[in-house]
Amino acid sequence: MSNGRGFDDLGWARPDTDREARLGLPEVVYGPGKTPEQITGVVRSLLRANTGPVLVTRIEQPVASEVCRAVPDAEYDAAARLLVWHRAEPVGFDVAVVSAGTADGGVAAEATGVAGAVGLSVHRISDVGVAGLHRLMAERGPLSGAGAVICIAGMEGALPSVIGGLVACPVIAVPTSVGYGAALDGVTALLAMLSSCAPGVVVVNIDSGFGAAIAAYRMAARR
Amino acid sequence: MSNGRGFDDLGWARPDTDREARLGLPEVVYGPGKTPEQITGVVRSLLRANTGPVLVTRIEQPVASEVCRAVPDAEYDAAARLLVWHRAEPVGFDVAVVSAGTADGGVAAEATGVAGAVGLSVHRISDVGVAGLHRLMAERGPLSGAGAVICIAGMEGALPSVIGGLVACPVIAVPTSVGYGAALDGVTALLAMLSSCAPGVVVVNIDSGFGAAIAAYRMAARR
Amino acid sequence: MSNGRGFDDLGWARPDTDREARLGLPEVVYGPGKTPEQITGVVRSLLRANTGPVLVTRIEQPVASEVCRAVPDAEYDAAARLLVWHRAEPVGFDVAVVSAGTADGGVAAEATGVAGAVGLSVHRISDVGVAGLHRLMAERGPLSGAGAVICIAGMEGALPSVIGGLVACPVIAVPTSVGYGAALDGVTALLAMLSSCAPGVVVVNIDSGFGAAIAAYRMAARR
Amino acid sequence: MSNGRGFDDLGWARPDTDREARLGLPEVVYGPGKTPEQITGVVRSLLRANTGPVLVTRIEQPVASEVCRAVPDAEYDAAARLLVWHRAEPVGFDVAVVSAGTADGGVAAEATGVAGAVGLSVHRISDVGVAGLHRLMAERGPLSGAGAVICIAGMEGALPSVIGGLVACPVIAVPTSVGYGAALDGVTALLAMLSSCAPGVVVVNIDSGFGAAIAAYRMAARR
Amino acid sequence: MSNGRGFDDLGWARPDTDREARLGLPEVVYGPGKTPEQITGVVRSLLRANTGPVLVTRIEQPVASEVCRAVPDAEYDAAARLLVWHRAEPVGFDVAVVSAGTADGGVAAEATGVAGAVGLSVHRISDVGVAGLHRLMAERGPLSGAGAVICIAGMEGALPSVIGGLVACPVIAVPTSVGYGAALDGVTALLAMLSSCAPGVVVVNIDSGFGAAIAAYRMAARR
Amino acid sequence: MSNGRGFDDLGWARPDTDREARLGLPEVVYGPGKTPEQITGVVRSLLRANTGPVLVTRIEQPVASEVCRAVPDAEYDAAARLLVWHRAEPVGFDVAVVSAGTADGGVAAEATGVAGAVGLSVHRISDVGVAGLHRLMAERGPLSGAGAVICIAGMEGALPSVIGGLVACPVIAVPTSVGYGAALDGVTALLAMLSSCAPGVVVVNIDSGFGAAIAAYRMAARR
Amino acid sequence: MSNGRGFDDLGWARPDTDREARLGLPEVVYGPGKTPEQITGVVRSLLRANTGPVLVTRIEQPVASEVCRAVPDAEYDAAARLLVWHRAEPVGFDVAVVSAGTADGGVAAEATGVAGAVGLSVHRISDVGVAGLHRLMAERGPLSGAGAVICIAGMEGALPSVIGGLVACPVIAVPTSVGYGAALDGVTALLAMLSSCAPGVVVVNIDSGFGAAIAAYRMAARR
Amino acid sequence: MSNGRGFDDLGWARPDTDREARLGLPEVVYGPGKTPEQITGVVRSLLRANTGPVLVTRIEQPVASEVCRAVPDAEYDAAARLLVWHRAEPVGFDVAVVSAGTADGGVAAEATGVAGAVGLSVHRISDVGVAGLHRLMAERGPLSGAGAVICIAGMEGALPSVIGGLVACPVIAVPTSVGYGAALDGVTALLAMLSSCAPGVVVVNIDSGFGAAIAAYRMAARR
Repeated sequence: MSNGRGFDDLGWARPDTDREARLGLPEVVYGPGKTPEQITGVVRSLLRANTGPVLVTRIEQPVASEVCRAVPDAEYDAAARLLVWHRAEPVGFDVAVVSAGTADGGVAAEATGVAGAVGLSVHRISDVGVAGLHRLMAERGPLSGAGAVICIAGMEGALPSVIGGLVACPVIAVPTSVGYGAALDGVTALLAMLSSCAPGVVVVNIDSGFGAAIAAYRMAARR
Repeated sequence: MSNGRGFDDLGWARPDTDREARLGLPEVVYGPGKTPEQITGVVRSLLRANTGPVLVTRIEQPVASEVCRAVPDAEYDAAARLLVWHRAEPVGFDVAVVSAGTADGGVAAEATGVAGAVGLSVHRISDVGVAGLHRLMAERGPLSGAGAVICIAGMEGALPSVIGGLVACPVIAVPTSVGYGAALDGVTALLAMLSSCAPGVVVVNIDSGFGAAIAAYRMAARR
Repeated sequence: MSNGRGFDDLGWARPDTDREARLGLPEVVYGPGKTPEQITGVVRSLLRANTGPVLVTRIEQPVASEVCRAVPDAEYDAAARLLVWHRAEPVGFDVAVVSAGTADGGVAAEATGVAGAVGLSVHRISDVGVAGLHRLMAERGPLSGAGAVICIAGMEGALPSVIGGLVACPVIAVPTSVGYGAALDGVTALLAMLSSCAPGVVVVNIDSGFGAAIAAYRMAARR
Repeated sequence: MSNGRGFDDLGWARPDTDREARLGLPEVVYGPGKTPEQITGVVRSLLRANTGPVLVTRIEQPVASEVCRAVPDAEYDAAARLLVWHRAEPVGFDVAVVSAGTADGGVAAEATGVAGAVGLSVHRISDVGVAGLHRLMAERGPLSGAGAVICIAGMEGALPSVIGGLVACPVIAVPTSVGYGAALDGVTALLAMLSSCAPGVVVVNIDSGFGAAIAAYRMAARR
Repeated sequence: MSNGRGFDDLGWARPDTDREARLGLPEVVYGPGKTPEQITGVVRSLLRANTGPVLVTRIEQPVASEVCRAVPDAEYDAAARLLVWHRAEPVGFDVAVVSAGTADGGVAAEATGVAGAVGLSVHRISDVGVAGLHRLMAERGPLSGAGAVICIAGMEGALPSVIGGLVACPVIAVPTSVGYGAALDGVTALLAMLSSCAPGVVVVNIDSGFGAAIAAYRMAARR
Repeated sequence: MSNGRGFDDLGWARPDTDREARLGLPEVVYGPGKTPEQITGVVRSLLRANTGPVLVTRIEQPVASEVCRAVPDAEYDAAARLLVWHRAEPVGFDVAVVSAGTADGGVAAEATGVAGAVGLSVHRISDVGVAGLHRLMAERGPLSGAGAVICIAGMEGALPSVIGGLVACPVIAVPTSVGYGAALDGVTALLAMLSSCAPGVVVVNIDSGFGAAIAAYRMAARR
Repeated sequence: MSNGRGFDDLGWARPDTDREARLGLPEVVYGPGKTPEQITGVVRSLLRANTGPVLVTRIEQPVASEVCRAVPDAEYDAAARLLVWHRAEPVGFDVAVVSAGTADGGVAAEATGVAGAVGLSVHRISDVGVAGLHRLMAERGPLSGAGAVICIAGMEGALPSVIGGLVACPVIAVPTSVGYGAALDGVTALLAMLSSCAPGVVVVNIDSGFGAAIAAYRMAARR
Repeated sequence: MSNGRGFDDLGWARPDTDREARLGLPEVVYGPGKTPEQITGVVRSLLRANTGPVLVTRIEQPVASEVCRAVPDAEYDAAARLLVWHRAEPVGFDVAVVSAGTADGGVAAEATGVAGAVGLSVHRISDVGVAGLHRLMAERGPLSGAGAVICIAGMEGALPSVIGGLVACPVIAVPTSVGYGAALDGVTALLAMLSSCAPGVVVVNIDSGFGAAIAAYRMAARR
């Protein structure tokens, strides 16, 4: 139960129990660097204070299992490394999650999993890198119907520029750390996406499928 | 007149005359590095092919004057360094353009000018840097009513993180090249905004008030 | 025993036995890369030459245990990875150690442990990141009473800018390597803190809870 | 006159008129990128709301002259590029401002000018670079009496490490953009100072004599 | 006249008079930083020792005029900033020079001018950036007939990846310094092109239309 | 079997089955980050749709063995970490693969293996670093007969500059991650090769023996 | 046995058997990335062709043991990770090897080991970092007698600047990767040493005790 | 006149009047950022206290003329931008100053001018870049007779690696800011020279002909 100040004080953590009221979505727990006990403590606090979905991201199978035993009724998505309690009802907003290569699959899974958990409807389009444009062109129909496109690519990060020229809706670019050498662990794709010649492309942090999904949720929420 | 292929071939340039049909907005002309004659040529091509607004960005007064003489009926916004023909009707979407310091004013003017030209309604909030939070808190009302917030800051780029925790709508962060030394001409603010602890903040290129406005336009267009 | 020249010559090391006289604090031993025998040798030299606290930082449990067996009467703080002999009496200077997220806890523990060992009184405030400002605002009372604030944050490193605008005392910013992608292992937070719009914020090295605590000690010592 | 909300709303700027009450020091105006009219407007607002010193930094002679005509009773320090109204009474805190080379003089002048204006007593020590240590050693007396040392150096930025080993008081390191090639416009000195082997050295932004002086003021204010 | 050692010794310069024999092409003179007298001296030396084309690159109009007066029979291409003596006969190798935006025109002009001077046949395709793919697709015919494609782009540098997936011939990517902020003066395009997902794309230095043309010449020469 | 659209849709991957028709070479599978099942799936798709060579790069022995059991008739080259089905007939194009040091051997093996698999004839020249030029000079004969030289070097990456001055054919430079400290994992060699004073040298990504071989294949294919 | 061309051709390696004649010192084998068999092969080739010392650097104990069994009469220095055959007679040149901290010991051991093996006389001075200058000052006598000083430091890399102002002989600075955060794995020390205010300091690669020793050898050899 | 403490205290500068006694060479005045009056003041101080050469580096003609009027008997070398009083007698040490391209001439002039002024004998070898090796090979005789080689190159900085394999004496590498794009204003050459595969090459700061000459002087002084 909240302490009336909008957060719980667990001593070592202060879950922001007011976030759902402010943003329509509770605080999301970032898994790495937390013990199962810490994750469990924060999740319980958030479940007490909120009625909507509660999420833990980047949580590996063994830790997830331990948390699930302590706090029942979670769904675990291994590809997305995501734990979800209280999945939201569909809000009627379609997001296309498009990825350039098969190695971008983990980031796409996180974007897909988070978007679904908060009530967005997801259309997945995989492996449509720009070196074989006909693969992307075959999907122009689904793309044109989306409320937003999450566009995931590593290496040279060119896909958002091409898609940004094809669709009118928001394009949320997610650089990935896929590639080697001059790809600089995703920094090259990040810089390229920020320098895109397609107008109005927006960018989130490297590998942040989560950030892209929440950005789409913000767009949906304001309709 | 378009050549039926979706672009004009001027030899040295190929204005994308099909962009309004695809994206709801004609190609926008980026002024730097173009002669007045080149700008005039592209603007004429776009005006022939489109019915909506035509824009030239980052165009200084002397060049703007020369272009205005050649292509009448333009409005020039000196603070925004922006030329506009065929300003759009309001589309009924409110954007708050919030800037951290007075030195961010030029970027804010570009965001405001472009947003207004394409039909968005803009509420300007100036000089609400995080080292004096009460200035921002006094504006929570207007912020909470916006369809999107364009958040402009240089130096450490902290403003989007604070705003991202206060509002539920999309937050479009624009890093500026304001600052010196460790601010690295805007790179520090850019990296900080991408690393924001507020979920779902999205980022555009350094000083790109234009990019932020078009991103907001994409969000409005899909409603 | 010192050789009268202000240092011990152990052949492979020269503990600065004069530092307590010069700076009011003996040399502190940085643990990584040293064998238990080397740490033991330096600690014995410092204990012989000084009467105040002797510290070993960043020392993991197994090495710490071995050193403790060789040189009795140490306290080991596992969260801080800190060994202390001859803890100092309180000097009557209050330091607030404020951290943005739970993942910054290890750095905060080091700052807290070192500050306490050298005689400062510490007030710990955890998990008050700027994306949920009300958590920080609830602590304005304790903050305003501090002689110095050690402010620890990773990711975008925005917390010192906000605190620097709330308190009049020295603000010592500690960037942490928490975050991924554009956070660049703490470099982004470091650059952001150095570019802070709050006047007079000072910065120490990434993850250096130790450096921040000694900086506070220098401030206390000069009163 | 303040609007009762702790700031003035000039439309394009919101001077933080509450800062003196919160931090004991009014907002300081950063000159670059502001017109004389803008500077004048903010200064007037701050003078109305505060009784202590009001400062404009990095303001060149011609702009300063224009501002001085509009707002009388200012002192202009050309070496420091600093305008001051309502210089503070001495607060009884001694600061040594030490610089490594003659080319660091402008930054040292800013630190000295700002420190003096807010009431600190300054002892200037010039041109004591580490390649001729006897010059520094001749000043050990004055150094040991200081309440804080502001240590200014470009190139390799070694001076704070040496001074940090000689004095017990706070050492505030200011990297300068002096040097060429591998000095990287001050980034090398910045990184070196942050990596100092002397414990508890703190660092401000490149060329920020202002930041160092305010940091010292914070230390003085808390005594 | 050569001194029999394969170079002229002018004291301050040693034109490599043997390069035509070794590589089929004389040394090319890079203009910047050389006085008209120095350029004249080197050009005369090369004309004495060789029968093929002699080139000076990146030479502005005033210097070019002075050199042309001293060494007759040159052609000057102002857009390419190129001086040519002894233009080569066509060697029967077709190069497509493709550029992404109008601002890339100067680099494309250099590539075109150098390629033509050494005997390649050039097909110029301008302003076919990836945000309007139909402009590029309209040129698939000419592209497929080329012996090599020189592909010039700034900003995110995506064009070579798209073209590399459309044509079987060598693709020589030239990043340009066009763009701002995250484009990092061409470094972003450079890194993106090196990280291209299209196999076998090769890259030359930023803005080096010259380098790309000579690379194509090497390919032609070996047929 | 292809779906008539130029690619197979495996759900999680879309092998570009049209690439052999467009580029004369099927899509190549990049091994890292793919499970044996995924590799097997894509390889089968490509073998169904193409008649030419099918390759998997950077595949370690255990994964390769598993794939070989599932899809027979592969050759595995352990030094090159390369799997090949349907090795091509020689196309009559000679490539010299030259490496600066023994530690560059793995990259050279990949270049050699891929080049051979697609039908190029390879002459290997090992360990001819520029600090012992006579080793390279002894190979001037074989070098002068090549259709292209693939030049592999780490550390300072000087070899392509020397070779680019000796041969008239294309020089494809491959920087390697060999070296320590200032070699920056291959970035130094990459930048050095791009800055080469030898005209017309082209560069591929760090450690990309594969990219260099395909670049050579493109040159051969256009003859 | 050499092939008369100044190198051995082992197929995968070409030991430069002429280097002793040219430079007075055989080729030195860099251990990492080579199998014991490869090291053995190159060492045998060098021992056949030369009479002076043969060295393998950065070779760990297990590999060293295997090589020693295959090629007898080697000395192994574990701290320096160095194998030596045919240690040289003293050449009468004194080198001081000075290190700033105990963690720099490994690099100092390599410098010491290599210098001794090629005939230089070494005086080791350990742990004289600039934060306790009296430790260094106590060694001014030995320093002033040296023919060259090898100066090893990590973190801020200040030691060579101080020593460069104390001695007239050559100062060879070796940055080490000791430190964390802003020390950037030795890059900060490297840049600082190159920016030294002490005139005529020279620098070698990060952690390259070997490079510093050979630089000193070159100085000795020319006397 | 010196104050007996080894330096003059001019208030704003402390010339190190003891440096000639310690290092055999007075302090050298770095010109940029100093007024003619400041330069004059320091030069007079140094001339009073020393008998050997006094130098001002990087001083442009107009400032030099003013200084020469105030302090007679100077020689000005315009190419080197160098002022010299009391040129030293030859010390009998030969230095070869070798530069890769004509654009490196200014840095070579500084190295030559400073070396000559302090008594070294200089042999200049110009324009022997590695893309035309025969130019360098023609100078092997003079190179082999030198006591040290100063090797100056921009772009890829390959020349020291080649020369380091040809001569036994010290090789002092000077990277220059010559080049564009990936040359990164000399940083690429700097990194390449530090990563040289030729053993024992040492490096000074970018464009520092002065630093290289003093390094050679240190080598000469110790003979």
